[in-house]
Amino acid sequence: MTRKILVLPGDGIGPEITAQASRVLAACQARGLDIEVEEAPVGGAAYDAEGSPLPESTLAKARAADAILLGAVGGPKWDKLEDIGKRPEKGLLGLRKELGLFGNLRPALLYPQLAEASSLKPELVAGLDIMIVRELTGGIYFGQPRGIEERDGQRVGYNTYVYSEAEIERIGRVAFEMAQKRGKKLCSVDKANVLEVTMLWREVMERLAPEYPDVELSHMYVDNAAMQLVRAPKQFDVVVTGNMFGDILSDAAAMLTGSIGMLPSASLNESGQGMYEPCHGSAPDIAGQNIANPLATILSVAMMLRYSLGEAELAERIEAAVGQVLDDGLRTADIASTGTETVTTEAMGDAVLAA
Amino acid sequence: MTRKILVLPGDGIGPEITAQASRVLAACQARGLDIEVEEAPVGGAAYDAEGSPLPESTLAKARAADAILLGAVGGPKWDKLEDIGKRPEKGLLGLRKELGLFGNLRPALLYPQLAEASSLKPELVAGLDIMIVRELTGGIYFGQPRGIEERDGQRVGYNTYVYSEAEIERIGRVAFEMAQKRGKKLCSVDKANVLEVTMLWREVMERLAPEYPDVELSHMYVDNAAMQLVRAPKQFDVVVTGNMFGDILSDAAAMLTGSIGMLPSASLNESGQGMYEPCHGSAPDIAGQNIANPLATILSVAMMLRYSLGEAELAERIEAAVGQVLDDGLRTADIASTGTETVTTEAMGDAVLAA
Ligand SMILES: CC(C)[C@H](C(=O)O)[C@@H](O)C(=O)O
Ligand SMILES: CC(C)[C@H](C(=O)O)[C@@H](O)C(=O)O
Repeated sequence: MTRKILVLPGDGIGPEITAQASRVLAACQARGLDIEVEEAPVGGAAYDAEGSPLPESTLAKARAADAILLGAVGGPKWDKLEDIGKRPEKGLLGLRKELGLFGNLRPALLYPQLAEASSLKPELVAGLDIMIVRELTGGIYFGQPRGIEERDGQRVGYNTYVYSEAEIERIGRVAFEMAQKRGKKLCSVDKANVLEVTMLWREVMERLAPEYPDVELSHMYVDNAAMQLVRAPKQFDVVVTGNMFGDILSDAAAMLTGSIGMLPSASLNESGQGMYEPCHGSAPDIAGQNIANPLATILSVAMMLRYSLGEAELAERIEAAVGQVLDDGLRTADIASTGTETVTTEAMGDAVLAA
Repeated sequence: MTRKILVLPGDGIGPEITAQASRVLAACQARGLDIEVEEAPVGGAAYDAEGSPLPESTLAKARAADAILLGAVGGPKWDKLEDIGKRPEKGLLGLRKELGLFGNLRPALLYPQLAEASSLKPELVAGLDIMIVRELTGGIYFGQPRGIEERDGQRVGYNTYVYSEAEIERIGRVAFEMAQKRGKKLCSVDKANVLEVTMLWREVMERLAPEYPDVELSHMYVDNAAMQLVRAPKQFDVVVTGNMFGDILSDAAAMLTGSIGMLPSASLNESGQGMYEPCHGSAPDIAGQNIANPLATILSVAMMLRYSLGEAELAERIEAAVGQVLDDGLRTADIASTGTETVTTEAMGDAVLAA
């Protein structure tokens, strides 16, 4: 059965990096992987072309796809758009919500070849391997009511942070199962000393724990988690948290590795359909210069093969190829250091394909 | 006119560290500072003694005081309290709200003597001096409606993140004025690409900017701010943000220094009345052992003298004394390193007094 892959290049460096990842997909195809690859616009590019950051046709193709590869969305060009519903970010948020991609997996993995890129002392990050499981279709990102309105003669802005038991349980199970496959430690992050919604979060996590007796569950307040990530990040194995805290903590964790240009992510729904994207953004400042790092996007293809297409072996081959080019001393500008060779986006793609 | 100081020791290491800070206050008194010092219970200690984390009598004394010194609240003993309104944290939150202490100043300052305590590489944090201005009486901490309730047969938890223009403007002015007195750079942190409440936040900050033409205002999304704090923290001078983001970012920033046991904080209301407390928590694991670091609390006394009592000179003398004991190589266990002398809480107090 031919599987459908939809590539959404998006904005900024998105087109350049997805181009290299598409070459890797094509190489898999040449080796017998039965896929069909299509492209569609999203984000600012889609707004410019069709007046919407998530055109109907793109959404329809996304629904029909087995897996989606996204580059990145957003840029200063669209930051001043009056109609907030038209901003590039809404294309991304719309895809997450419409496809029900509630389970966001964000690894923070330190590549030994890039250890010195970290701003932390080497001994604190050597071997770092954290998996952040972020709830992606609920919480304050989507809570109602929300808006800006006039009350007693002045404007007031408000959003609603809301989770149901079912939503918490669903992401909790993803995290417990992930912990079972990894180091068997799960840290749930909340602010249960202040926010009722996260008291419920903590309660549900506690209730699930006996079903996963091999996993050691702990709880941490979000402020402490932010501190502990800086102080001693290797204490974490799997971290599970809501949409907003996950946004903040996964970026902080990614930055601990010093090479956010290396980190892929997966967003999964209940039927295993997934959207895969690099953790980094659209980097409009370096767009179109053929210097962006395509490895996070290429590694997102590996995650796609593993989680949506059941091709773990191919995934490992891609990951090994990336390890190989790093061993060979090839680096894009963002991860360059003395003694390595700085290469273009395209040359990095060539090297991964060759490896 | 005699000024009234209220000391609230609280829980865990609170009593030990405020005891040393009280000795410093007494020394100021002996040198002619016209103050009257009283103590009252708060937090878990108050709950145990009087059934409430913020007894009426404590609140009345707090209202009457010119300034308040707080140790710390909370501990595992009270974490399972069924009635959330009785938890130690509610004592602290109640004080903030009742006294209108909306302006929270949290410095993240690296003491050169303790540079190696940071988990970041020395060149990234040498000379670090960030001031985080956190809104403290609004946002999602206090927003209504909130709670846990049954909807369609399952429980749902919810909180409301809300700010009015007036609340944003008030904390904005504190931050702009702080930036004027410091490096003239203000970074406002929000999530304006997703949350309406922070779109209003950004808009109000923009509107205030022309009134402070000597301050350079920038905006950053909270996820990026968490990354930038790890990547290149010295890019920041003053940071202003809401209650929840401020909780997370100020703890991360404090941890960059590696010595959270050194960092004081101030919480001010519109009439200049203030509550002063160390950034660290109640550390129940080391309570009562005479090993906790009293310096953050002693430095909180210095902030009190500067911001609430108009005694900048005395404040500087205390800060200089702390610098002196560090130069002399004295360290409590939390900041100890090879070549320094580890001392007790009390001995550290002695040394500061002597200096
Ligand atoms: C672009 C933005 C809406 C998005 C988010 O906040 O989720 C991004 O920061 C991310 O983490 O994928
Ligand atoms: C104890 C807790 C309620 C408090 C807060 O979240 O504000 C603390 O973390 C702080 O930052 O002072």
